[in-house]
Amino acid sequence: MLVRFTKMHGLGNDFLVLDTVTQKVKVNSAMVARLADRNFGVGFDQMLIVEPPTDPDMDFRYRIFNADGSEVEHCGNGARCFAKYVRDKRLTAKETVAVETQQGPIYLTITQDRQVVVDMGVPVLEPQKIPFSADQQAVTYPIEVAGQIQQISAVSMGNPHGVLVVDAVDTAPVETWGPALECDPKFPAKANIGFMEVVSGAEIRLRVFERGAGETKACGTGACAAVVAGRLRGLLDQKVTVHLPGGTLLIEWAGEGEPLIMTGPATTVYEGQIFL
Amino acid sequence: MLVRFTKMHGLGNDFLVLDTVTQKVKVNSAMVARLADRNFGVGFDQMLIVEPPTDPDMDFRYRIFNADGSEVEHCGNGARCFAKYVRDKRLTAKETVAVETQQGPIYLTITQDRQVVVDMGVPVLEPQKIPFSADQQAVTYPIEVAGQIQQISAVSMGNPHGVLVVDAVDTAPVETWGPALECDPKFPAKANIGFMEVVSGAEIRLRVFERGAGETKACGTGACAAVVAGRLRGLLDQKVTVHLPGGTLLIEWAGEGEPLIMTGPATTVYEGQIFL
Repeated sequence: MLVRFTKMHGLGNDFLVLDTVTQKVKVNSAMVARLADRNFGVGFDQMLIVEPPTDPDMDFRYRIFNADGSEVEHCGNGARCFAKYVRDKRLTAKETVAVETQQGPIYLTITQDRQVVVDMGVPVLEPQKIPFSADQQAVTYPIEVAGQIQQISAVSMGNPHGVLVVDAVDTAPVETWGPALECDPKFPAKANIGFMEVVSGAEIRLRVFERGAGETKACGTGACAAVVAGRLRGLLDQKVTVHLPGGTLLIEWAGEGEPLIMTGPATTVYEGQIFL
Repeated sequence: MLVRFTKMHGLGNDFLVLDTVTQKVKVNSAMVARLADRNFGVGFDQMLIVEPPTDPDMDFRYRIFNADGSEVEHCGNGARCFAKYVRDKRLTAKETVAVETQQGPIYLTITQDRQVVVDMGVPVLEPQKIPFSADQQAVTYPIEVAGQIQQISAVSMGNPHGVLVVDAVDTAPVETWGPALECDPKFPAKANIGFMEVVSGAEIRLRVFERGAGETKACGTGACAAVVAGRLRGLLDQKVTVHLPGGTLLIEWAGEGEPLIMTGPATTVYEGQIFL
């Protein structure tokens, strides 16, 4: 059958958005992997499914598939595109949309200047819950890389992150330290590794080596983890502009026990029709 | 303005096909490069433009842009998609379509089983025209790679090719010998390097390291060059099935001075609409 889809991106993290509210499509892993191929299929990092809610108090259900066909819990760049999609397609007129995900409800707000605000949840700092191998929680931990001891922060945003402060992101050894620290035994579930240059209390530059993916254009959870690490180290204010290779996010964090609030853009690239 | 396009591929070599016969669009290099980006744009190896002919004896004009925005002369996988496109969109009902290109006219024929037959032109074997550094034309030439002397054939199909016969393509040193031979001083304009396993007189397996691009899924001119090399070495028949990583082509060559005839598939992936 002929199915409509929309291609979108959030800071270069790109998505096929498929609406199963207004059309009947069954999605399976093999189909996702076939569509994800950038030569033989449509090509995307993740596929986002817009479904009717199962809970009558929610507006939609949001499901996310990786390019290999596996289903995942959450994607911050995808959530912004999801919100733009349901508003642009007039599936809702609400400013704040209540969305069911595998991790629980999330609330997405469209601002007047067409940015999207996402509650990214409360960061986890207890080492065993990250997971990170340390006897007790600390602001930074010593870790060995390339024969030297560096200070790393460890934060979970639902996924484990290690964050280093560097003098300049452009010359940071992301290609070598990234894979080494990703697989360091202190991160038993591996980790995303962020390299943060502090420009001022209100501005950082960040590159993230993502677990299993290598360096990416824009990691939403990585931006949150970096702001948590920088705040705890006393380097950053409550509102921080985060410059990533793919573009800019605004991250707000009131402090321990509070959720991270991410504001950023979502972009529609084209509309498509494909036989599935 | 909102522009219609079609995404297609020929053995995994993928294309955005833009029709300027039925809609008015001006294409420039910056636009092509922006659309070629696989995260921020549509994503493709080449963009194919279907234009009205300037010569009244021809049916269409065919222009090809690489992902970096540069215009190129010819693309065999693209030519097959071009032919399928103009037939599927009912821009012509002819079985053989006469197409203007920068290199001169080409003729594309759709077979009953929806394969496309492309005249790939006459191969050039004179060393100085390839260009290849040798005093006189030979079937193979000695060349040094990884400290050993190998026998390489040199053929131009409009672009320079070097072809080696290997015992098994799966274990051929494409990643190391490919870039070394591509830049060997004997090929002053560099070269595409083919690694050919002769299964029988009627069947080869082929991997091609493309000049400036690395190993690709399916190189149409590389398949032609390999058949020329194998025929001249007395290893192949007139009709050869060529198995490439992206799929299979049938190549026919009557011998020196005759054109190569390539038969292969063209696939439509989806229809799109984008604001340009």
